Amino acid sequence: MRILSILLFLGITFFSYSQELKSPNGDFKLVFELENRVPTYELFLGEQHIIKKSKLGFELKDQEALLENFEQLSVATATEDNSWEPVWGEQKSIRNHYNEMLVALNQTTTNRKMNIRFRLFDDGLGFRYEFPSQDELTYFVIQEEKTQFAMAGDHTAFWIPGDYDTQEYDYTTSKLSEIPGLMQTAITPNASQSPLSVPGVQTALMLKTANGIYINLHEAALVEYPCMHLQLDANNYVFESHLTPDALGNKGYMQAPRNTPWRTVIASKNAGDILLSNITLNLNEPSKYADTSWIKPVKYIGVWWEMITGKSSWAYTDIPSVKLGETDFTSLPPNGKHAANTKKVKEYIDFAATHGFEQVLVEGWNQGWEDWFGKSKDFVFDFLTPYPDFDVVALREYGKSKGVRLMMHHETSGSVRNYERFMDDAYQFMEDNNYNAVKSGYVGDIIPRGEHHYGQWMVNHYLYAVEKAAAHKVMVNAHEAVRPTGLSRTYPNLIGNESARGTEYEAFGGNKPDHTTILPFTRLVGGPMDYTPGIFEPDVSQYNPNNNSWVNTTIARQLALYVTMYSPLQMAADLPETYNKHLDAFQFIKDVALDWDKTLVLEAEPGDFITYARKEKGSNNWFVGRTNDEEARLSTINFNFLDKDKTYIATIYSDAKNAHYKKNPKAYNIKKFRVTHKSKLKQPCAPGGGYAISIIEATQKQDLKGLKRL
Amino acid sequence: MRILSILLFLGITFFSYSQELKSPNGDFKLVFELENRVPTYELFLGEQHIIKKSKLGFELKDQEALLENFEQLSVATATEDNSWEPVWGEQKSIRNHYNEMLVALNQTTTNRKMNIRFRLFDDGLGFRYEFPSQDELTYFVIQEEKTQFAMAGDHTAFWIPGDYDTQEYDYTTSKLSEIPGLMQTAITPNASQSPLSVPGVQTALMLKTANGIYINLHEAALVEYPCMHLQLDANNYVFESHLTPDALGNKGYMQAPRNTPWRTVIASKNAGDILLSNITLNLNEPSKYADTSWIKPVKYIGVWWEMITGKSSWAYTDIPSVKLGETDFTSLPPNGKHAANTKKVKEYIDFAATHGFEQVLVEGWNQGWEDWFGKSKDFVFDFLTPYPDFDVVALREYGKSKGVRLMMHHETSGSVRNYERFMDDAYQFMEDNNYNAVKSGYVGDIIPRGEHHYGQWMVNHYLYAVEKAAAHKVMVNAHEAVRPTGLSRTYPNLIGNESARGTEYEAFGGNKPDHTTILPFTRLVGGPMDYTPGIFEPDVSQYNPNNNSWVNTTIARQLALYVTMYSPLQMAADLPETYNKHLDAFQFIKDVALDWDKTLVLEAEPGDFITYARKEKGSNNWFVGRTNDEEARLSTINFNFLDKDKTYIATIYSDAKNAHYKKNPKAYNIKKFRVTHKSKLKQPCAPGGGYAISIIEATQKQDLKGLKRL
Repeated sequence: MRILSILLFLGITFFSYSQELKSPNGDFKLVFELENRVPTYELFLGEQHIIKKSKLGFELKDQEALLENFEQLSVATATEDNSWEPVWGEQKSIRNHYNEMLVALNQTTTNRKMNIRFRLFDDGLGFRYEFPSQDELTYFVIQEEKTQFAMAGDHTAFWIPGDYDTQEYDYTTSKLSEIPGLMQTAITPNASQSPLSVPGVQTALMLKTANGIYINLHEAALVEYPCMHLQLDANNYVFESHLTPDALGNKGYMQAPRNTPWRTVIASKNAGDILLSNITLNLNEPSKYADTSWIKPVKYIGVWWEMITGKSSWAYTDIPSVKLGETDFTSLPPNGKHAANTKKVKEYIDFAATHGFEQVLVEGWNQGWEDWFGKSKDFVFDFLTPYPDFDVVALREYGKSKGVRLMMHHETSGSVRNYERFMDDAYQFMEDNNYNAVKSGYVGDIIPRGEHHYGQWMVNHYLYAVEKAAAHKVMVNAHEAVRPTGLSRTYPNLIGNESARGTEYEAFGGNKPDHTTILPFTRLVGGPMDYTPGIFEPDVSQYNPNNNSWVNTTIARQLALYVTMYSPLQMAADLPETYNKHLDAFQFIKDVALDWDKTLVLEAEPGDFITYARKEKGSNNWFVGRTNDEEARLSTINFNFLDKDKTYIATIYSDAKNAHYKKNPKAYNIKKFRVTHKSKLKQPCAPGGGYAISIIEATQKQDLKGLKRL
Repeated sequence: MRILSILLFLGITFFSYSQELKSPNGDFKLVFELENRVPTYELFLGEQHIIKKSKLGFELKDQEALLENFEQLSVATATEDNSWEPVWGEQKSIRNHYNEMLVALNQTTTNRKMNIRFRLFDDGLGFRYEFPSQDELTYFVIQEEKTQFAMAGDHTAFWIPGDYDTQEYDYTTSKLSEIPGLMQTAITPNASQSPLSVPGVQTALMLKTANGIYINLHEAALVEYPCMHLQLDANNYVFESHLTPDALGNKGYMQAPRNTPWRTVIASKNAGDILLSNITLNLNEPSKYADTSWIKPVKYIGVWWEMITGKSSWAYTDIPSVKLGETDFTSLPPNGKHAANTKKVKEYIDFAATHGFEQVLVEGWNQGWEDWFGKSKDFVFDFLTPYPDFDVVALREYGKSKGVRLMMHHETSGSVRNYERFMDDAYQFMEDNNYNAVKSGYVGDIIPRGEHHYGQWMVNHYLYAVEKAAAHKVMVNAHEAVRPTGLSRTYPNLIGNESARGTEYEAFGGNKPDHTTILPFTRLVGGPMDYTPGIFEPDVSQYNPNNNSWVNTTIARQLALYVTMYSPLQMAADLPETYNKHLDAFQFIKDVALDWDKTLVLEAEPGDFITYARKEKGSNNWFVGRTNDEEARLSTINFNFLDKDKTYIATIYSDAKNAHYKKNPKAYNIKKFRVTHKSKLKQPCAPGGGYAISIIEATQKQDLKGLKRL
């Protein structure tokens, strides 16, 4: 259903226009105004100013800016209300309900046209710039986008530093006014990083106002455009868009007709509404693929954590430099620590088969790891040639015999020309060898040199890889790529991304204990994260005596992450030998679903805690997860989301008394209860802890025998 | 035959070393000296200083320079004398005869090793740097190569401005001291250009000393390294290497073991020796291809000059902007000037078949020409999709029926990521449609932006394309690519390059009349040029009334260029309708060979005239060509190169009396004579003129009837 109305203002010159748009439920009000011929907008939630009057426009290269001297040509409004079903997701069906206003502008001094399209949903705003086909503006280069987001006060922000190459930072929680002073500390080392030269932060940015409004700023449908950061005027609490530059310092190469990505403002009095918002997905286009039957959520293990901790190595030898196609690895002494060897991978396949995992990721299988990043090495990886101790065919056949696939790994070291040169053959190699999912990586500085991970060049590349992969029915999980903006709706084989500080950092010095209470409010607003949870051995030195890192979590919370960190791709990241010591807790990882009919937020406060309940797709089973910050907290939930006519068995995996992420992380309890929609739970959570619950419909009476009611 | 001797200086510290090397004939002497621990070299021809004492070394990024504090570890000498046969070329067999000296150096302050290998031939010097495998130097970035070429006087130079993106400049002839003052004038506009910020010129650079020594500076085997320019200290007549930077200003990304390209100094008292030198080829590696049977010289015509002159268009429509894959060309009005249409191409095929041309180049066949350069447009061309009026299959079949192939055209507009993404499919498309040669183009600024046509990134790309093409048995003729450095020896499917100001500029305002008397001394030192001669209508306005350009040549000289501008790829560039008016002169283009057993220079003076005689491969036929500058000159040659026991018919295509490149360019005479090895010719050449001679063995007496002796 689409209701359209157009108001035309032709040939009349006004000096100030003001247009209002309300959200379908009337809670939000958007005001667009040409103030002294400068386009501005502001956003209200009820009486609250979410965005104060903020300017819109662009600086262009070698031509007059698109910032002022505008007249309004027309305003068109429309209403949309429909629903759609994602290929995979947190909800079976997603409602797309908004009121729209398209403001057509003309810059009188140049006769160039620029339109702004606003979509106001019941949970927030999306808007984008549209450059229609016109004689006066066809090819142009954006020097900077000048979209403002003026905050109404000195809000609390959950932020990471703006950077053209990495999002792998711990979150800092502070007032807006404190951000500049805290920036230096927040910028921790990374294999590739280019912090903004001005104080700035990344999106999705989570904010909370003094009077309890939650605000989230992000973007949707980032295609053929640089990723946006938010530069901060900390005196006036005004954010302004700051695009990622290319090697020449230019920001965006445009050819009209073309639209920018959407800029999004989600806001609510309830933190949980931010987590449940579908604005990002709704502002993306429907799936481009006619057939999506080959796209399926995946639960996997991997030859991975042992390299991350330093117990094993990706490289086959210890020589410092190799030349692909010239170095004869069969003649070199192996270093004895190379994990991606046939024998070990078979053991992983056995473990996967025993416990019902579909795939085994193997990193370090292909030649090139000896000098894989930090060398600006162009031909750094060969995506077809294994090390001598990795037998592709034998493992393919062994996997087939066990019903387990290997998951491909394509580390590029940022050398994307090299990757693209191999891409067709590399995906064909996957098809030939029974792989259907690839984890790609972009560690290190980008080659072509001077380009950035989040610039237009790379934004184009990531999507090119996803579309190429689709032609081979391959699912993609890109690490170190640009943060997602809901593109998995359009390209549902993009089943995962990293684009934030994941579990690996627990072996690189640790993540902050509240990290996973923030990520769903920030990174996950754009799409799922391959966070790789499931670490059962927090003491990393148990694997590598030279690594004193500590995983800041209890085991119970690790289980919760499979529910709180939504992803259709879930890894059990720890070593099989460790899971074998805790098979009771491991049972939750085996049981938990990957795809959902329904998602509820039971409790949420960014930086403190999040409790989700999710109903498994096509079943009556529910799973609950709770992630906690560094404080001991009591979680109070009730089970009124359950079907009234059903009885369930709830298995609660919780922190034991005295559990503590530093002092006693492995102390957990597992208890079973009989639950119905009337059940309630008061569950203590340890510092750095949490809990997980599986809620399985009791279809046989005897299943309930001896179980207490909750 | 390789004779090797090694002198070792171990553990001894000297403050000055001096090593001498002589050429096999003893004419050249090279002196290497560590002067105050700084590596230097000088070169003598007899008593003449060709290169005065000149420094060697590098500035590196983020580490100590490799310029001083060296000790000599060892000197190894060797002699090589062998011969090899090129797949195609100016000679059937090429002798590779040199004395070699390898100086192994150690920088005492850093313990880094750098070797310098000198090869001294009877016609000049080649030397390169070699970085052996070592712990102290593996990955490094060259900030600048600091190789000096100190001239012994204020020589006359035939030069074009140093530029990272184009060589398409007219030559300036001046003293070295005059170069800085003339630079501004010499830098004429180009679609992509980045002149050096310091006074500098390009190689191959041709020089002549006051006492009549000819010197040529160039490089050989440019692989995975930036192209070298020569920066000039015009007060001291010292050239210094200036490498093409990347987007970050870096010059070369190196991984030891690795060698630089060779730096070459060819010198002689005879200008012709410069033209006949094989140093550039000899310093390249032998062919990498086991099977070269698919590589064959090609004589072709093309749907080309009518676009160059502006008579026709590459683009199918006149709309200013298209989006490939979105724009529906079948629904757009054709501009009526699109030359690459099925009907016209069939006519070209007919003409080719009638006159024995193997191929017809067709430019403008594929979608994207509407906005093809100057827009920094990434997805600018589709290399698979023809315009609606170009029927690939019909033309393939029509060509087959006539024994004529189409020649593929891949204009990239410098957007090389886009080209590489298409490359596999584009070459496969060629195989599928009976193409075996491609003319590629790189007009406009390079994308990735900030990279240059002559930087390491692009040097890598050009070779990647050649090797990819070889896998499809495709021959490559790359325009706007880096100037050749003899790589066609190693990759003989690189059958052509432009990389200089070709005939097209005759329709863009004209080339200087002496242009083709210089190119063989400069551009052609590195390899053949697709100069596209054969223009019979010097008045461009005859094709396009809006184009007042004038081709600065007589028709007779156009014929000579097929001999003087060596190339295994020769085009007859003018329109069939024009050739049909001059079929008598056109006969020479039909007759002239493409591949040679023997090449002689009969007369030569850079900037004034060149006369070549070449013997056709596998036949007794000879062809002579003479190109003249803007002055009327008398050419005097004798035919003592002919077999003593044979009689030949010489057909002389010469300027008519009163011919003149401006006033009377079309006036030519064609005369036949009986010639033997005793014959002599005194042939006047018009200003901007020249002549061509075909010398065919008379196998039947009656062929000679009525022919005068010469």
